[in-house]
Amino acid sequence: MKIFDRAEVKLTSGYLFDKQELNRRITVDAVYDRFFDTGRIEAFKLGWKEGGENKPHIFWDSDVAKWMEGAAYILSEHPDAELEARIDAIVADVKRGQHSDGYFNIYFTVVEPDGHFTNRDRHELYCAGHLMEAAVALDKYCHKGELLECMDKYADCIYKAFISEKTAKFSTPGHEEIELALVRMYCHTGKKKYLEMAEYFINTRGAVDEQMKGSYDQSHLPVREQSEVVGHAVRAMYLYTGMAKLAKETGDKALFEACKRLWADATEKKMYVTGGLGSTYIGEAFTSAYDMPNDTAYTETCASIGLMFFANAMLALENDAKYADVIERAMYNGMMSGLSLDGKAFFYENPLEISLSEHFSLEGAGRTFKVMKRKLPITERVEVFKCSCCPPNIVRLFPSFGEYIYGCEGDTLYVNQFVSSQLSSGDVGCVMTADYPRSGSISITPEGVKRVAIRIPSWCKSFGLNKPYREEKGYAVVECDGSEIALTLDMTPRAVWADPRVRRDAGRLCIMRGPVVYCAEGVDNGENLHRFSIDADFGWTEKENEAFGLPTLEIDAYELKSTGDGLYTSSAPTKEKTRLTLIPYNCFANRGESDMLVWLRQN
Amino acid sequence: MKIFDRAEVKLTSGYLFDKQELNRRITVDAVYDRFFDTGRIEAFKLGWKEGGENKPHIFWDSDVAKWMEGAAYILSEHPDAELEARIDAIVADVKRGQHSDGYFNIYFTVVEPDGHFTNRDRHELYCAGHLMEAAVALDKYCHKGELLECMDKYADCIYKAFISEKTAKFSTPGHEEIELALVRMYCHTGKKKYLEMAEYFINTRGAVDEQMKGSYDQSHLPVREQSEVVGHAVRAMYLYTGMAKLAKETGDKALFEACKRLWADATEKKMYVTGGLGSTYIGEAFTSAYDMPNDTAYTETCASIGLMFFANAMLALENDAKYADVIERAMYNGMMSGLSLDGKAFFYENPLEISLSEHFSLEGAGRTFKVMKRKLPITERVEVFKCSCCPPNIVRLFPSFGEYIYGCEGDTLYVNQFVSSQLSSGDVGCVMTADYPRSGSISITPEGVKRVAIRIPSWCKSFGLNKPYREEKGYAVVECDGSEIALTLDMTPRAVWADPRVRRDAGRLCIMRGPVVYCAEGVDNGENLHRFSIDADFGWTEKENEAFGLPTLEIDAYELKSTGDGLYTSSAPTKEKTRLTLIPYNCFANRGESDMLVWLRQN
Repeated sequence: MKIFDRAEVKLTSGYLFDKQELNRRITVDAVYDRFFDTGRIEAFKLGWKEGGENKPHIFWDSDVAKWMEGAAYILSEHPDAELEARIDAIVADVKRGQHSDGYFNIYFTVVEPDGHFTNRDRHELYCAGHLMEAAVALDKYCHKGELLECMDKYADCIYKAFISEKTAKFSTPGHEEIELALVRMYCHTGKKKYLEMAEYFINTRGAVDEQMKGSYDQSHLPVREQSEVVGHAVRAMYLYTGMAKLAKETGDKALFEACKRLWADATEKKMYVTGGLGSTYIGEAFTSAYDMPNDTAYTETCASIGLMFFANAMLALENDAKYADVIERAMYNGMMSGLSLDGKAFFYENPLEISLSEHFSLEGAGRTFKVMKRKLPITERVEVFKCSCCPPNIVRLFPSFGEYIYGCEGDTLYVNQFVSSQLSSGDVGCVMTADYPRSGSISITPEGVKRVAIRIPSWCKSFGLNKPYREEKGYAVVECDGSEIALTLDMTPRAVWADPRVRRDAGRLCIMRGPVVYCAEGVDNGENLHRFSIDADFGWTEKENEAFGLPTLEIDAYELKSTGDGLYTSSAPTKEKTRLTLIPYNCFANRGESDMLVWLRQN
Repeated sequence: MKIFDRAEVKLTSGYLFDKQELNRRITVDAVYDRFFDTGRIEAFKLGWKEGGENKPHIFWDSDVAKWMEGAAYILSEHPDAELEARIDAIVADVKRGQHSDGYFNIYFTVVEPDGHFTNRDRHELYCAGHLMEAAVALDKYCHKGELLECMDKYADCIYKAFISEKTAKFSTPGHEEIELALVRMYCHTGKKKYLEMAEYFINTRGAVDEQMKGSYDQSHLPVREQSEVVGHAVRAMYLYTGMAKLAKETGDKALFEACKRLWADATEKKMYVTGGLGSTYIGEAFTSAYDMPNDTAYTETCASIGLMFFANAMLALENDAKYADVIERAMYNGMMSGLSLDGKAFFYENPLEISLSEHFSLEGAGRTFKVMKRKLPITERVEVFKCSCCPPNIVRLFPSFGEYIYGCEGDTLYVNQFVSSQLSSGDVGCVMTADYPRSGSISITPEGVKRVAIRIPSWCKSFGLNKPYREEKGYAVVECDGSEIALTLDMTPRAVWADPRVRRDAGRLCIMRGPVVYCAEGVDNGENLHRFSIDADFGWTEKENEAFGLPTLEIDAYELKSTGDGLYTSSAPTKEKTRLTLIPYNCFANRGESDMLVWLRQN
């Protein structure tokens, strides 16, 4: 399907709208301020000298570029002189700092000036890709073409170094991203060279002389021969997104087939219930099928964002609601948990279990010979990271929610997500009213199409629709008669099980309400949440919660009590009836450090 | 109670006897051979020069000393010219290499010759302690006094450096061991200076100027103020053993009270069901109460051995069967698992869960930029470690099983462990016949005492005794009438639960038969053992197994089956009845690398 552009879709109210507003009012500035404090903004002036403060890192260009991309989206809808000045200043720095051959990179200008295109693992092309995405955003939505001009020159420089003259010391980027950026450059400008470059990097990846680079960055096989998602999860998602976007433009069937296999492996064997990807912090990587430890889950915010990119690119290739289902899963859970409720702080890792007593540190009074802390994710969000890719990824994703809602194919309008919004694209339009996911009542009034295909979420076993419909790949297809279509999704909290091959979740269940995963926190229920178990058909009550923007649940549960017989005993522990408070997973750790558990033991 | 000496107790048949024989026939030579290969034996010649092969490590003296101690025990009962020559050669090396001031240490002679007693964390006193233990063993049981003479001189050197002249740059050892060794030296020779030295090191530990050393090596508080077991588990056990042995000799009540508190903390809050200690590989250390992850359990073989030392020292101070219960738990489980069935290979870590698919390694073909392996224990025993403390600890423990069986107090003979054996100590004697733990039938015929106190294991809820008895601190006390006492312990396999505060075991149970913990292995049951669950009152059958020396169990179980509905679904997985094969935990990983699980999900 054709996915409608963000400029054609306006969110009007509701949960995601509130998050967009939070991002516009708070997050975009909070991220800028931290980037300013840490020297990332100043770094664009290329004034750093050996021995100076704030030595630029290899990925700082990309941090700020992602911020600029998000800021451009915000600016395009909400004039803001200060924000505009900040963007313009950075663009001016890039223009001023760009080498005569078109090259631009902070680190390889001030730290290793002789190292242009010599080290595959130093994020040069990754940074270039993000700058290109920012350039497209500024030109397309803000009519600011300067950065695009710079990036066009930089693209020529890259073309020479990698394709026509092959002076670069490597063939493909160690961290993918430029592939999808180049397709975006092509789609925006229509210039074939960008498509050629995207094809070059994708087709060269994993070629024979590249395979020694290993599976960490998906270079172990030519991409069309890949079937298993491996290695660094964010790298993987960016590559697959680039592949899918390229396949859409070129009609490359083998590439599309590879994308389908990789999609299936990721979402059917390696995806957490929250839409999190990456089971280990070592390499921030995928491990083996069904290996999803909850306490040491890596599940980087950027990986869930990357999964949304990949899913939307797949949806553009194939009208199957399963892609939109995964977007919804990541959006309301493992991606959204990346941002604090106040909009200022971020998780890089999004674990599904915290036991504070395991965050044990053994240090001598004043002695630091060894930090005795087990490697576990942090337990509270922070404002900036040394490797701070996630915060600006949120800044650019939130104003883009509009790109996930509608699509069309011929005379059919596709409704992929439920958000109060207005679509307006030529003759085609739609007004949707949905206080989702707080409520399951959705009203859709399309215009200029013959039929509407409305996604029926795979989690929903019971729904009401006020029109006749036929089912097609997860969509309920309704013939338009000019009147409002009313859909009601059953939002009753329900038990969800993982495939029994997911060993860490065996004998456990999690509670979902609509698309929202719930969790128990120590702050409500006391420490050591493993002592609770619940029935599959648990009793429950809902409570509104303004701070969370989603209801909390009180559910019937059982609590294990010690028999007092000692550490190990042949008397079974007793079980007492109790109530357990659950909150939306994406809100965890907003009330201080606390134990947390998603997968509860089944009684 | 007075614990009877190993020389007074002879094992005559049965499970532990077979293990002793395995150690004598295989293990003692296997460990020597590996120590020879790795240069540990040669190192005693002090010929290493910078740039040479096999650079001595700081703990090599102790590795070989422990081997010598074990070899001395074996030699004392089984003349063996080759073994004797090996011991004699090492002793001759020590004698020849000893400095004129009595000092002896390989590393600080050939690698850092100017560093004597300057670095608290370099195991000098730890090595000295093990050499002293070997010296006592050789003199007491083999009438070979040369090493004892050397160590007496070395003790004088240490006395000067640490006590009378205080030339040493630190006050107490970074790795405890010498404390218990000095008490053994005192008990064997009667020389007060050894007791004084033991007291000095124990009393100085954690004194104000030591507290900065931290809890990693139990220096955070004066030992009499310590109540929580912390830090490196083996260090902790050796210290507490030294404290208890000292308290026994001096009658120091405050020290005994500290030992009791530490005992309670270790065994009631931090001990695995296998008698394993140490929850994390980071620092090989204790963490917080009830924190006992099964897959990343550290549970070093030496820590379980140290727990047996500590328990026996406590039993000498207090006639309470709980100490002997813990000895039994460690002996048949987490200690015994340290040795392979063929007697040649060893575990350092003894985890309670292995999922091979989590031992994931992501490497590029030929590229080694990063080993992507999560830190998990090894899955098969090996013949020697770089830090190879566990193998020779087994070599010296196995010939000492006799020291754990009998004790006496006044006219009462205590039977602490059940082993076919003969006790002969002056007028006091005992003949015990027990094919334990294969069978629960035990025959005891005492001599020269008025009563016998027989431990009734705390795991045993049903037993038969052919005499009237009264219960006293876990013992059944029987008045002697000259005839055989017949005890029958119920060896029915049973479910065992952990206190619900042990979060990793919540909702799970393990199967024990007598003192033996059982586990499921993938080699019998297929991978992903988490798919099984069992009822608390499971049906079972027993099968003899010669290789294991203990029966295996087949038990009724349930197996979760995928509904095929996808990775996450609101259809509960189905359960099918099946049978599960369990083997004694201490035999795991003897048939190749395999999944393994102790704590099974309760149905």
